[in-house]
Amino acid sequence: MSLFEIAPVFHLLESALLAKLAHLAGFPSPGPDESPPNLPPGMFCPGGSVALLYSLQLARHRLQPDLVRFGASGQPLSVFVSKSGHYGAGKAAAMLGIGTDAVVEVATAHDGSMDPNALRDAMATAVAEGRTPLAVIATAGTTVTCAFDPLNEVADACVEHGAWFHIDGCYGASALFSTDHRHRLAGSHRADSMVWNLHKMMGVTQQCTALLLREPERLDSCFSSGAEYLFQPDKQFGEWDSGDRTYQCGRRVDALKLWLTWKARGDDGFAARIDHAVAMADFARMVIGTSDGAFVPVVDTGFTNVVFLWVPPELRPLDLEYLFSEWSEGRSGAVWDRLHRLAPRIKARMQAEGTALIGYQPIHGVNTFRVLFMNPAVGPDDVDAVLGHIARYGAEEWADLD
Amino acid sequence: MSLFEIAPVFHLLESALLAKLAHLAGFPSPGPDESPPNLPPGMFCPGGSVALLYSLQLARHRLQPDLVRFGASGQPLSVFVSKSGHYGAGKAAAMLGIGTDAVVEVATAHDGSMDPNALRDAMATAVAEGRTPLAVIATAGTTVTCAFDPLNEVADACVEHGAWFHIDGCYGASALFSTDHRHRLAGSHRADSMVWNLHKMMGVTQQCTALLLREPERLDSCFSSGAEYLFQPDKQFGEWDSGDRTYQCGRRVDALKLWLTWKARGDDGFAARIDHAVAMADFARMVIGTSDGAFVPVVDTGFTNVVFLWVPPELRPLDLEYLFSEWSEGRSGAVWDRLHRLAPRIKARMQAEGTALIGYQPIHGVNTFRVLFMNPAVGPDDVDAVLGHIARYGAEEWADLD
Repeated sequence: MSLFEIAPVFHLLESALLAKLAHLAGFPSPGPDESPPNLPPGMFCPGGSVALLYSLQLARHRLQPDLVRFGASGQPLSVFVSKSGHYGAGKAAAMLGIGTDAVVEVATAHDGSMDPNALRDAMATAVAEGRTPLAVIATAGTTVTCAFDPLNEVADACVEHGAWFHIDGCYGASALFSTDHRHRLAGSHRADSMVWNLHKMMGVTQQCTALLLREPERLDSCFSSGAEYLFQPDKQFGEWDSGDRTYQCGRRVDALKLWLTWKARGDDGFAARIDHAVAMADFARMVIGTSDGAFVPVVDTGFTNVVFLWVPPELRPLDLEYLFSEWSEGRSGAVWDRLHRLAPRIKARMQAEGTALIGYQPIHGVNTFRVLFMNPAVGPDDVDAVLGHIARYGAEEWADLD
Repeated sequence: MSLFEIAPVFHLLESALLAKLAHLAGFPSPGPDESPPNLPPGMFCPGGSVALLYSLQLARHRLQPDLVRFGASGQPLSVFVSKSGHYGAGKAAAMLGIGTDAVVEVATAHDGSMDPNALRDAMATAVAEGRTPLAVIATAGTTVTCAFDPLNEVADACVEHGAWFHIDGCYGASALFSTDHRHRLAGSHRADSMVWNLHKMMGVTQQCTALLLREPERLDSCFSSGAEYLFQPDKQFGEWDSGDRTYQCGRRVDALKLWLTWKARGDDGFAARIDHAVAMADFARMVIGTSDGAFVPVVDTGFTNVVFLWVPPELRPLDLEYLFSEWSEGRSGAVWDRLHRLAPRIKARMQAEGTALIGYQPIHGVNTFRVLFMNPAVGPDDVDAVLGHIARYGAEEWADLD
């Protein structure tokens, strides 16, 4: 992808896919039944972090139109993202020369979704301190609990402050395929940009990242270089060239595999994939909820992520509220420390024996397992098997822990 | 690619490839016969423009170690690249918030290679004006003429000013595979970074970009975020994880296809690919040189790019020096204007008839054809055929031009 003449079909195909994805998100778009536009509503990018980089650069360019030529003005900026949002926000701020200190971490509700009152307060504080709210990154599907930020309330706050509204839908935007779950992204149509990794829930191979843009014409003024050995004004079909609208020039044809997958599965097949994943997560939640305290759910957003602890028999019933308050107040007894060191040992056993590969991360200081459901081949037996492994290794390793 | 545990073989394979490429370029590296290091001398990136972005960010981070947290200091910077260098320099400067005005275009010799005296003058001017020389981008294989900048002299200038020495070897670094041609990159071992697109001359599919780094440990301090749900300090094999050393996190496994190609072709096969490409370019130069003025070479660097004009019979013999001086002094006669408009029409005929796809670009204001030799399946008959098409369409279109 760069010049239409060397990849004409792929340019049409990418444009048609972006139009269809934009339509699902409610972005201005010609719609799936019309001809693909020569300026599609976005582009495919090498991953979510790069898509965020482009989005924040577009935001900065909207604020400061002479940015490209003169560089950043030195005006202090703030970028807002929830405490549960992706760490890519800091990385992008560092790369752009804004700095990670400009990233304001907004408090979340218990489930990991952004607290809109905290956002409004944080933006007001920034303004009072002389910093310009550049952008708010709302997360549709956080990495750990898969929480969805309240997009309409974020949009309201962005409108009030003239901030760019970006949605990190890397994981969760695929909920838009499902009638049952697209309500989680209510308000997505108000965003300036949204990134959507089809290589996550939709099972397309790495990399397949769509960046959707409300005003794709901004790409030209922000990224065009006008290299005359490529983008000759006197050649045919130049208006379709994508290479002068991107930071990259030549790109992989990441759209083709999505096109083929979508054609093979259909809209219904894509919806079924989401619905099945949530059904399996619901099954896991049911097993955990009826385990007589052997497992405890830690956070539950009702989507595809199941976050839980295995509890050694001597600690049942486990009072999670008490555990977390102990940790947050800096009091950690030997028992809790052992519990924290248990998950890495369980995981190491799973790896050594080749039975499963399940990630953990500290939540309030205690290593906690997280299972994500995406694979349509996963069934109830797999859920039972994985939880069974965790319980078995857990009992053995707990006895062995000093 | 991100965590060792989800792609262990690919991490080893990427590390081994980077060590071997670094060895060819003369970078510090354990060498191809030793075990792959868990901190490889670089990384694979999604394309040359992104690799340049990383390199300039590393350069800025070396200059200003608190960059990540506090953002750019506002210190005026200059980035030097030759007039024939890639337009990605400006794009990277814009993205980083430095601005395209900070990019100084250094004059070139007639063949398109950077004039080292002009570089020294430009750097001295920048310093005199209070700007810090951040980096010099030397080009090993410019886009149009495939010129190679004098790397040792660039290195000397960088040492003098403490500037980062980056080599854009996207196209030409592959000359390192050939005993006959690696001299073109003499001095590459002195660079701080070099980008090398294996998806260009080596025929690996898009994308396969290696960024080689003299001090890869800089990646950690510049790009690490320490996300605790991924890079747990208490898990196994974490020291091999690559995801916290890159701006991206998850990446495609671009190394695998290079590994397979290299295993299949061998070092000798890679060298033969380069030597064949130059042999075919030499053949084209011979045909052009013996065409009785039907074709004239415009610039010749003796490598894989052949840049030439087809000359209508009434203009033979064509005095190129006169043509270029007329253009550069703003005097353009109707004949030269017709010549400028001829190449797009020849190309459109080739496209319409499906005979060839050859790019052109203005050189001193006249559209000029450029043929790059890379494909090992191209032989002398193909060269004759393409030049024959150009001559035939040229004669027909010239008669038709108003």
